[in-house]
Amino acid sequence: MTEKTAVTPSGHTTPPALFSHGVRKGNVLQVAGQVGFLPVTAPGATPAVVGPGLPEQVRQTLDNVHAVLDAGGASWEDVVMLRVYLTDTAHFAEFNEVWDAYFAGRVTVPAARTTVYVGLPAGLLVEIDALAVLG
Amino acid sequence: MTEKTAVTPSGHTTPPALFSHGVRKGNVLQVAGQVGFLPVTAPGATPAVVGPGLPEQVRQTLDNVHAVLDAGGASWEDVVMLRVYLTDTAHFAEFNEVWDAYFAGRVTVPAARTTVYVGLPAGLLVEIDALAVLG
Amino acid sequence: MTEKTAVTPSGHTTPPALFSHGVRKGNVLQVAGQVGFLPVTAPGATPAVVGPGLPEQVRQTLDNVHAVLDAGGASWEDVVMLRVYLTDTAHFAEFNEVWDAYFAGRVTVPAARTTVYVGLPAGLLVEIDALAVLG
Repeated sequence: MTEKTAVTPSGHTTPPALFSHGVRKGNVLQVAGQVGFLPVTAPGATPAVVGPGLPEQVRQTLDNVHAVLDAGGASWEDVVMLRVYLTDTAHFAEFNEVWDAYFAGRVTVPAARTTVYVGLPAGLLVEIDALAVLG
Repeated sequence: MTEKTAVTPSGHTTPPALFSHGVRKGNVLQVAGQVGFLPVTAPGATPAVVGPGLPEQVRQTLDNVHAVLDAGGASWEDVVMLRVYLTDTAHFAEFNEVWDAYFAGRVTVPAARTTVYVGLPAGLLVEIDALAVLG
Repeated sequence: MTEKTAVTPSGHTTPPALFSHGVRKGNVLQVAGQVGFLPVTAPGATPAVVGPGLPEQVRQTLDNVHAVLDAGGASWEDVVMLRVYLTDTAHFAEFNEVWDAYFAGRVTVPAARTTVYVGLPAGLLVEIDALAVLG
């Protein structure tokens, strides 16, 4: 029997519905869609978006993905897929600049990535989830 | 050699193209995007949407995801990711209410989840797929 | 320790940011979102879309997915999920025709599939990524 465990970083508040920020089962760690929420200081606190700009939201979102990876015993090296949701195709170039600056020095074999443009709740410009394989 | 098998619940009609409602390979069970179609009584029948409302479509969609899991030998406890596609950000709160009511008592460790807002064929308000790890 | 390797087919140019066209880790091969880019003849060349029409973009996109699978030691038989992004619900019927013609004779157990409608960069009508389980 492969045990399934929920992964919730200390700075992440309880999800707004019955889902987990991360789930580990067997050698798989799945990170739920993360956005640019700042860490909360109390478990029940309402999360706040880091700011209105794309660069800060991208960095905070990736920090939040990493917090789940870290709490689940994984690192960027274990991530095989990062699924990126943006809201505007005009953001692609700036997004890639921030992305590259973020990952420079943080990973040796970059994950695969898919980027598509969708609707997100008001104020959010980016959402990212991740699939990691541990071993 | 890891065998790959297609999973089609008895109430699901043949997919409208060359894909499988579910696929099992090794310890992975992938559930294709499910929508609020009612079970069909004959293999070739055209599926009908359960109704125009969000709550009934969400419940039917989750029932359809579960039917694939069940036919593939998995349960909600094996699911690591549920990927949710809605059509309107205004549906988020109601969606979460229906979701929480559905999963209460049905799962001990909730899956990770990503929710984004996309276009879907006319009449459909929600689509959900799932990744499960068995063991 | 499970080694992680990047997979880049010879006809694929370097990705426009720090991600890999494919990643293999353990028994998982993840293919990044592929579009209808023609193969490039030089590593630094700017990729060009095969043409403006849906059928040719779908076939080229699937060829590009397959090139990553092949470079990673996998085949269509190993693919458990194909995630399809289209830009217009009116394309669904024609997309399925091209899809079925493409896969006829190419696979015995079709992968699972999710199809949603999103925004893509100008000129692109389809994007597809894939998850494969080897063994």
